Amino acid sequence: MDWSAVTAEVMTKIAPYRGQGRVADYIPALAAADPMKFGMCVVLGNGEIHCIADADEQFSIQSISKVFTMSMALRRVGDELWKRVGREPSGSPFNSIVQLESERGIPRNPLINAGAIVVTDLLVEQVGPDAMLAELLDRLRTLAGDDSIMIDEVVAVSEEKAGARNRALANFMQSYGNLCNPVSQTLKAYFSHCAIAMNCRQLARAALFLAFDGRDPISGQQMVSSEFCRRINAVMMSCGHYDNSGDFTYRIGLPGKSGVGGGILVIAPRHGSVAVWSPGLNAAGTSLVGSLALEALVKITGWSVFV
Amino acid sequence: MDWSAVTAEVMTKIAPYRGQGRVADYIPALAAADPMKFGMCVVLGNGEIHCIADADEQFSIQSISKVFTMSMALRRVGDELWKRVGREPSGSPFNSIVQLESERGIPRNPLINAGAIVVTDLLVEQVGPDAMLAELLDRLRTLAGDDSIMIDEVVAVSEEKAGARNRALANFMQSYGNLCNPVSQTLKAYFSHCAIAMNCRQLARAALFLAFDGRDPISGQQMVSSEFCRRINAVMMSCGHYDNSGDFTYRIGLPGKSGVGGGILVIAPRHGSVAVWSPGLNAAGTSLVGSLALEALVKITGWSVFV
Amino acid sequence: MDWSAVTAEVMTKIAPYRGQGRVADYIPALAAADPMKFGMCVVLGNGEIHCIADADEQFSIQSISKVFTMSMALRRVGDELWKRVGREPSGSPFNSIVQLESERGIPRNPLINAGAIVVTDLLVEQVGPDAMLAELLDRLRTLAGDDSIMIDEVVAVSEEKAGARNRALANFMQSYGNLCNPVSQTLKAYFSHCAIAMNCRQLARAALFLAFDGRDPISGQQMVSSEFCRRINAVMMSCGHYDNSGDFTYRIGLPGKSGVGGGILVIAPRHGSVAVWSPGLNAAGTSLVGSLALEALVKITGWSVFV
Amino acid sequence: MDWSAVTAEVMTKIAPYRGQGRVADYIPALAAADPMKFGMCVVLGNGEIHCIADADEQFSIQSISKVFTMSMALRRVGDELWKRVGREPSGSPFNSIVQLESERGIPRNPLINAGAIVVTDLLVEQVGPDAMLAELLDRLRTLAGDDSIMIDEVVAVSEEKAGARNRALANFMQSYGNLCNPVSQTLKAYFSHCAIAMNCRQLARAALFLAFDGRDPISGQQMVSSEFCRRINAVMMSCGHYDNSGDFTYRIGLPGKSGVGGGILVIAPRHGSVAVWSPGLNAAGTSLVGSLALEALVKITGWSVFV
Repeated sequence: MDWSAVTAEVMTKIAPYRGQGRVADYIPALAAADPMKFGMCVVLGNGEIHCIADADEQFSIQSISKVFTMSMALRRVGDELWKRVGREPSGSPFNSIVQLESERGIPRNPLINAGAIVVTDLLVEQVGPDAMLAELLDRLRTLAGDDSIMIDEVVAVSEEKAGARNRALANFMQSYGNLCNPVSQTLKAYFSHCAIAMNCRQLARAALFLAFDGRDPISGQQMVSSEFCRRINAVMMSCGHYDNSGDFTYRIGLPGKSGVGGGILVIAPRHGSVAVWSPGLNAAGTSLVGSLALEALVKITGWSVFV
Repeated sequence: MDWSAVTAEVMTKIAPYRGQGRVADYIPALAAADPMKFGMCVVLGNGEIHCIADADEQFSIQSISKVFTMSMALRRVGDELWKRVGREPSGSPFNSIVQLESERGIPRNPLINAGAIVVTDLLVEQVGPDAMLAELLDRLRTLAGDDSIMIDEVVAVSEEKAGARNRALANFMQSYGNLCNPVSQTLKAYFSHCAIAMNCRQLARAALFLAFDGRDPISGQQMVSSEFCRRINAVMMSCGHYDNSGDFTYRIGLPGKSGVGGGILVIAPRHGSVAVWSPGLNAAGTSLVGSLALEALVKITGWSVFV
Repeated sequence: MDWSAVTAEVMTKIAPYRGQGRVADYIPALAAADPMKFGMCVVLGNGEIHCIADADEQFSIQSISKVFTMSMALRRVGDELWKRVGREPSGSPFNSIVQLESERGIPRNPLINAGAIVVTDLLVEQVGPDAMLAELLDRLRTLAGDDSIMIDEVVAVSEEKAGARNRALANFMQSYGNLCNPVSQTLKAYFSHCAIAMNCRQLARAALFLAFDGRDPISGQQMVSSEFCRRINAVMMSCGHYDNSGDFTYRIGLPGKSGVGGGILVIAPRHGSVAVWSPGLNAAGTSLVGSLALEALVKITGWSVFV
Repeated sequence: MDWSAVTAEVMTKIAPYRGQGRVADYIPALAAADPMKFGMCVVLGNGEIHCIADADEQFSIQSISKVFTMSMALRRVGDELWKRVGREPSGSPFNSIVQLESERGIPRNPLINAGAIVVTDLLVEQVGPDAMLAELLDRLRTLAGDDSIMIDEVVAVSEEKAGARNRALANFMQSYGNLCNPVSQTLKAYFSHCAIAMNCRQLARAALFLAFDGRDPISGQQMVSSEFCRRINAVMMSCGHYDNSGDFTYRIGLPGKSGVGGGILVIAPRHGSVAVWSPGLNAAGTSLVGSLALEALVKITGWSVFV
């Protein structure tokens, strides 16, 4: 594939939309993002890396971290995970509490806030709060081959200050017995991993193993079992974009996960991994320009899993 | 692939579960089904057909017909369809009316009852009720190469008698202006296409085009555009099994659609199509033994789209 | 009490609001109502009748008929009624279907649409559809001493044409086994009693027995038992104004029932009955000027049950 | 009235039910209550006090305190209160969070948990947390003429420990901007006033002013304006028993408020006030024997507001 042509076409396709969408503004650090920014990075199984525009600028990965915490949890406890969280799309906004009441404190899936809080709680219980974050960072750094990946403490502190809704979710689940640690401890870890800063290059690289059956094709290391790798992709496909998941699957046809920082991670099984970033969000909280870029990329490459 | 070994292994895997699940009993014709029945048929792109057990016994395809009506609607009106129905998973049971109230008469997707009623209404308006059914049957017969495919009128009449819930859905949508034809007319067509009787062989063969970018690989005929084919598969993946869709994606990893008659249709892009049938259903209304058979098949063949 | 002073003060209080609110427009007959109209009639236990303005002009009583059908049902089957309908406020709009799903076809109370349809269904089953309407009209005529009370057939037919939402409710309840007669038959009777035309004088007079322990103080006839009379008032107090019931109780403090035709019936135990009419509705579907008039009346008379 | 006959008849009526119902067990202090206990006290406007059985034994008033905090709030800010909380019945359990999401953080009424937390928050903001509790206790002691009324600190601490659900509600409302103080501060005050211990005699005496237009008939002191008194009773009538309010109004026909400690306070306008206590609760969280006793009392006395 002529990647310079591919990237040129993607840039042409998104040009009319640059700057559109609404930047997340619930914390200052995110509100300050420049909506004109756009970065993209494609990493292939043979090690080729194709970066565009602001692909080396770090941003707050936010909910994309939920993919990595879900992976850690599956590695640690396997299918035991599903006793505390489901794997069904919610049909509701990312922070909805309604289903938690009718479903008695069991969140719908690990990629909405409530579910990711439960996953974090499980990891805090298994590993300890500090060791859990250390392990997560360590894996991301190793996979990305880049020790500069860090938690942005300013973002983490802001998230905690603005975290009333997540505290409501956590306390609610605690009232149903689905939280093992003190709310404040679990949420501290949760806010911290949401505040990890990465750039598109690091993110795509770190997730490459998900496109190759759980095995990083460059290092050769098996990160998760083949079976869990398939399943992580499945959950991303079903539930990766809150109440926008069906539309994302319809338009892009690849497992992915978006974050309110404007990042989107996408896995193209047997081809590679892609990270895009552009801060302006659509109504469902997914990067508007980022998803258009992915739609263009998939059209050109034919990487949809449905072809 | 050694298909006789594959089918033998599938049979071994499901053996302990034969007869389990609960046969749909809301109409006599379905309630009479023998829970021990099991059929499976795999059709490959090269025309090979691999049948197991009761693969030639007809059953009521029920909601699997929604895939074919959605295809017809996309062919006729394209993306206009999405003005009247969404493409998001519902996070609710197949016949839930709750979301219709908060979303003002627009059903979540074309593969739940409310959505399929809207799709039927659109086709009735576009084509006329009789011509619509004639066209649907004609296409199924041509694709399957089998003129014996018929509407089971006994089932259709029973469905209508037991159809209060669907009448509620239809009237509810009419109250929001999302129904063009009289409720009774649209529902008659809806109950009729749900009552189509097919066997696994016919069903898998008729849907083969969905595994090959919209083009039937045997006849060479393009049934839907490549783009809409991808999208039909995407909607099946996101929404094909009601509130069980995430679990199906997790376990089987292929676009599919189940019906309360015990049939499941599954598409393996670039490989082929699969139909299974076994009348006992799990709690979400999907064939229990059928989905176990598919899980085994996918494990052996590695056909998951997430590998 | 100096009733000419009372009525003068009420007229002064409402003067600035005449014509406000939104006239129901879902059927032509209601949409044609003049929003400037206002009528009021107070009937006392000693037979005194105090009428204001348009108190002798007939209007469509609409949901106020639900009080009389609930009374008929309690008289006929007593507490058996509560097997098919609750007596709790719904916390939802008058035509909501959401709770019917979680509560499996049992409506919250007899004064919302779903509940009144069940009550009508019960009466149709017990008495027959024609006899039921004949009995209802007969009682209203006898109580009001006025044979001119009729069903407005134009309104009844319009209601049926615009009745998709009520058909949805009825079919939905039928799907849960909470409807005995064919939907069309029950709804025909329902639309008919909602289309009864009365004026304020007739309405207040006909309901006077509810203010005197079930016994009409003029004729001396016991219409319902003392016990059921208390309970009819209780249900009116809890549930008489849909999702506006708490506000009505807060502001007016008397059992009442409103209709989208702009009428409100109110019972002042041991004092008398009051009917007001003004077509402009507030957001919850209760007469805006009518409820202001009642608020003024209650302030002057001190008739609140909470004093 | 022959009160010894009245009390004898009440005792006879409840005898077969003594010990029935389920004692609240979410905190040890409540779980330890003896389900056989039953107390009742009627206080009349002339100062007569009629006590039965365990009327002098203290219990945790729990949600009954919400009547007094609502009264304090209305006295302080008047109708401004309704900007932060509604006055409609919820149609939901006492601790439901569902409506808070669709109604954006505004609780339905001041007598469910969420609403009482907002009322407490308002009082904490207006008066300060300690002064607010001091004022509340002071009023209760003065009204009851009994300085022994205290907060049971053991209960208050237990409530806080078991308070995850209330913390969820408070954080949820904070996320919508409907909480002024830190969650922990508001909840501390909330748990404290729920933990006030009173006996039936004290409780009935302290609430007597609500039966006499806001003026304590013994001391002659006006506690709240006549208008607000009517309205406090109105809110108790509409919303005093969570999702059981309609049934309570139907059976007892008086404004009241129940608590999970097994107490019920009831106001009989122009007659007097009644407190009952018996720890066994019905499914909706209202004292089972207590409400039967009230039903019997109202039948004998004819105190229903609907007569």
